[in-house]
Amino acid sequence: MIWPMSETPTNPNRRIYLDYAAATPLSPQVKEVMLPYLGEFFGNPSAIHQEGQAADLAVSNARIAIARTLGARPSEIYFTGSGTESNNLAILGYLKSLKSTGRSYETMEVVTTPIEHPSILSLLPTLEELGVTVRFLKVNEFGLISKESLIDSLSESTVLVTFAYANSEIGTVQPVLQLSKIIRERSSKTKNPIKIHLDAAQAPLWLSCSINQLGIDSMALDAGKCAGPKGVGVLYVHHEFKLLPIMAGGGQEENLRPGTENVAGIVGAAKAIVLAQADYDKRSQLVGPVIESAVSYLQNTLPEAVINGPVEVSRLANNLNFSLPGYDTEYAVIWLDKNGVAASTKSACAGAGSGISHVVFTCTQDASRAGSTIRFSVGEETTIGDLMFAIDTLKQFCQKMKELTN
Amino acid sequence: MIWPMSETPTNPNRRIYLDYAAATPLSPQVKEVMLPYLGEFFGNPSAIHQEGQAADLAVSNARIAIARTLGARPSEIYFTGSGTESNNLAILGYLKSLKSTGRSYETMEVVTTPIEHPSILSLLPTLEELGVTVRFLKVNEFGLISKESLIDSLSESTVLVTFAYANSEIGTVQPVLQLSKIIRERSSKTKNPIKIHLDAAQAPLWLSCSINQLGIDSMALDAGKCAGPKGVGVLYVHHEFKLLPIMAGGGQEENLRPGTENVAGIVGAAKAIVLAQADYDKRSQLVGPVIESAVSYLQNTLPEAVINGPVEVSRLANNLNFSLPGYDTEYAVIWLDKNGVAASTKSACAGAGSGISHVVFTCTQDASRAGSTIRFSVGEETTIGDLMFAIDTLKQFCQKMKELTN
Repeated sequence: MIWPMSETPTNPNRRIYLDYAAATPLSPQVKEVMLPYLGEFFGNPSAIHQEGQAADLAVSNARIAIARTLGARPSEIYFTGSGTESNNLAILGYLKSLKSTGRSYETMEVVTTPIEHPSILSLLPTLEELGVTVRFLKVNEFGLISKESLIDSLSESTVLVTFAYANSEIGTVQPVLQLSKIIRERSSKTKNPIKIHLDAAQAPLWLSCSINQLGIDSMALDAGKCAGPKGVGVLYVHHEFKLLPIMAGGGQEENLRPGTENVAGIVGAAKAIVLAQADYDKRSQLVGPVIESAVSYLQNTLPEAVINGPVEVSRLANNLNFSLPGYDTEYAVIWLDKNGVAASTKSACAGAGSGISHVVFTCTQDASRAGSTIRFSVGEETTIGDLMFAIDTLKQFCQKMKELTN
Repeated sequence: MIWPMSETPTNPNRRIYLDYAAATPLSPQVKEVMLPYLGEFFGNPSAIHQEGQAADLAVSNARIAIARTLGARPSEIYFTGSGTESNNLAILGYLKSLKSTGRSYETMEVVTTPIEHPSILSLLPTLEELGVTVRFLKVNEFGLISKESLIDSLSESTVLVTFAYANSEIGTVQPVLQLSKIIRERSSKTKNPIKIHLDAAQAPLWLSCSINQLGIDSMALDAGKCAGPKGVGVLYVHHEFKLLPIMAGGGQEENLRPGTENVAGIVGAAKAIVLAQADYDKRSQLVGPVIESAVSYLQNTLPEAVINGPVEVSRLANNLNFSLPGYDTEYAVIWLDKNGVAASTKSACAGAGSGISHVVFTCTQDASRAGSTIRFSVGEETTIGDLMFAIDTLKQFCQKMKELTN
C-alpha cells in the first residue's frame, strides 16, 4: 500500500505518542471503574465484614470477567504486581513445584528464545545457578521461531518451553498454536509432560488471547500494556499446571501470591483486558493500514531505513521497527522528543539509554543495525499524518547529522 | 481513665469501621495526587521521552519525599508491590546476597519472634529449606521481646534479626532502638555483622519511623496500611546493606525490583507516608484516650473480656484486642458486622475464618483466649460512642449466646 498523498504530516501543537509498547494511556472507562475502589470501597478482601466482602467480591468479579474473556476458569486466573512478576512466578514457580516432588533441578531443561523480554532473559542465569539447563531456540531474521529448532531442542528432560506471543521490540507474532502442537505431540509421544508458558504482555490490544486458540499452560499479561493501570499483572494457569509461590505471606490468591490485593488495580486490569479483547480485531484492522502506509512513506523518505521484524504478516499491527545504520538513534529519539514525538529505540525494560538491541542483533547478526533501532508503537488514535511527521522529523535529524559529519 | 458517662453509644445509621489494621480508607489528599498519573501522565519511567521523564520525575520525587520523611537518602528507598514483598525482599535478598559472596546457607542464622506477621513467619520454612537456621526470641505475655532471650539468641552465625515494630494483632510496640543497640553491641564486640530488618507495616500512622530513632538496616512499609493505595510497598535499605533481587527482569529500582513502576501508586504511597508521619504524634494523642475509655467501658460492660497485649504503654495507640473466652468470636464479628460494626478477630493476612490467634497463644499459652480474640483497630474519626456501641453490641451477642446454651 502507498501512503495516501492527500494526507499531510501533523503539525504537532500536540504531542505525538508512539510508544504504546512501553506504556499505554489509562482508558477513561478503566479509570471510571477503578475510582470507587480508591474511595468508598477500601476494604481488605481477606476481612469477613461487609467492607472486606465488598472488596473480595470486586476481586472475584474481576477474576470472572478475565476468565470469561480468555475462555478460562475463574480459578485459573491469578493477580500479581506486574507482567514481570507473572513471568517469574510461572517459570520459577513451576520449577520449584517440580523440585518439591523430588526431581532435581539438574534433570530439568527449559527451552526459550534469545529474543525474550528481560523478565525472561534475566531469569535464565538464576535457573542455571539452580542447576537447570537452558536451551535456546533458533529464530529467523524476522524473529520467528524455527520449528526444526524447536523439534531438535525438545528432549526427555524438557520440562518447560517459554516464549513471547508478540515480541515487544520488533513485533514478531509467533504462531503459538502451531508451536504448542509440536510440543504437545512430542510430549505425548515420549510421555514426558512439557509445559508451555506464554509471555503475552504485548498481545491483548491486538491479538486474540483465547486460551483455546493458543494451547498453552500459562500466560502472563500486564494491565499497564493494554490501557489498564500499571502495577497489576495477571497470570493464567491451567488447573492441571501446578505452581508454587515465589514469595511467602498470607494465603491470598489461593496461596500462590501473598500480599493484600490491589483491589482498585485488579478491577481496572479486568476492565482493561475485557475492553482490549472485545475489539482487538477491529483495532488491528484500524492501525494495520496506518503502519503499512508509514512503512511505504518511510521507504520513500528515508531510503537508508531498514525494517526490522516481519513485514505485513506475523507482525503486531501497531509496531514499526527499523534501523538507521550509521546513525545514533538514541540521539534521534531525543531529537524526535524535542520536536513533539515520543518514540523509543527498544524495550523500556531493556534500559532506555544503553547498548544495542539484543533482539535485532540475534535476528540479523548485524551490530550496526542492532545499534541503530527506532521503534514506533502506535495506538488507535495515531494517524498516518502523525507517523509522516515523525518520519519527516527523523529525516531532518539524518540531514543534520550528515551536515555535521561532512 | 473512666469512660465519659456523658457519651452515648453511636446509633449506627452509618457503618462503624474498626479494622484500620487490615485496611485504611484512601486519604482524599492521596487520591488527589494520584489522579494525574491515572490520566495525563501515563508514561513509562524507563522511557527517555518527555512522557517517560515526567513519570520518572514523579517516582524520583516520591522517593525523595519518603527519604526526607524517614531521614534517609533517596537512594535508600525502593518501591515494591506490597509490605509482604518488602519483607520477602529484605530477608531473602540479604541471604542471597551473602550466599553470593561464597558463604553457605548452612552457616547463617536468622533470629525472629514467633508473633510475626505471616509474611515473615511463612518465609521461615523457605529459609530452613535453604539450610538457614531460624531462632525464635521469647516474648512475654504482652508480646514484648525478652532482652535476655535476644542476648542469648545472638551467635557468631547470626546474620539477621527481624521483628515487627508494632504487632498487627495485639499492637505491641517493641523498643526498637533498645533492641537494635543490644544487637549492635554484640555485633561490634564479635566483629560479626548482624543486620536488622524491621517490619513497620503498622507503624506510620502512629509511631515515628525516623531511621535515626530506630537503628535498623532495613524497614518495610505498606502504603495500604497508612491511608495510601493498596499494592505498593516501600523498602528502606541502608546504603551499606546489600541485597540481591528476588525476581528477575528489567533494571528498575536500581536492579533490585524489576517491573514497570506503578507510578500512580508510588506517588500515592509517598503522599500517604508523608502525611502519616507529619501527624503520627497528634493522631496517637487523639485516639489513645478513645481506646483507654473503651477499655474502661469494656471492663465494666463485659467483665469476662480479657485484654490482650500491653496496657497503656508499649501499645499502638489505635489498637484494642481482647478475648471473650468461651465465645465463638468469628461469629461475634459477623454479629457485629450485621449490626453495623466492622471488626476482626485477628490479622486479615492470617486468614479471616480459620483457627486461633497464634500471636495470643504464643504470648499467653491459653488456647481458649487465643481462640476467642476480637481486634478493634480505630482511626482518627472513631469516637468513644462508636466503640461503646460496638461493645454494647458484643454484650448483646454474649447474652444471646448464653440464652442459647442455657
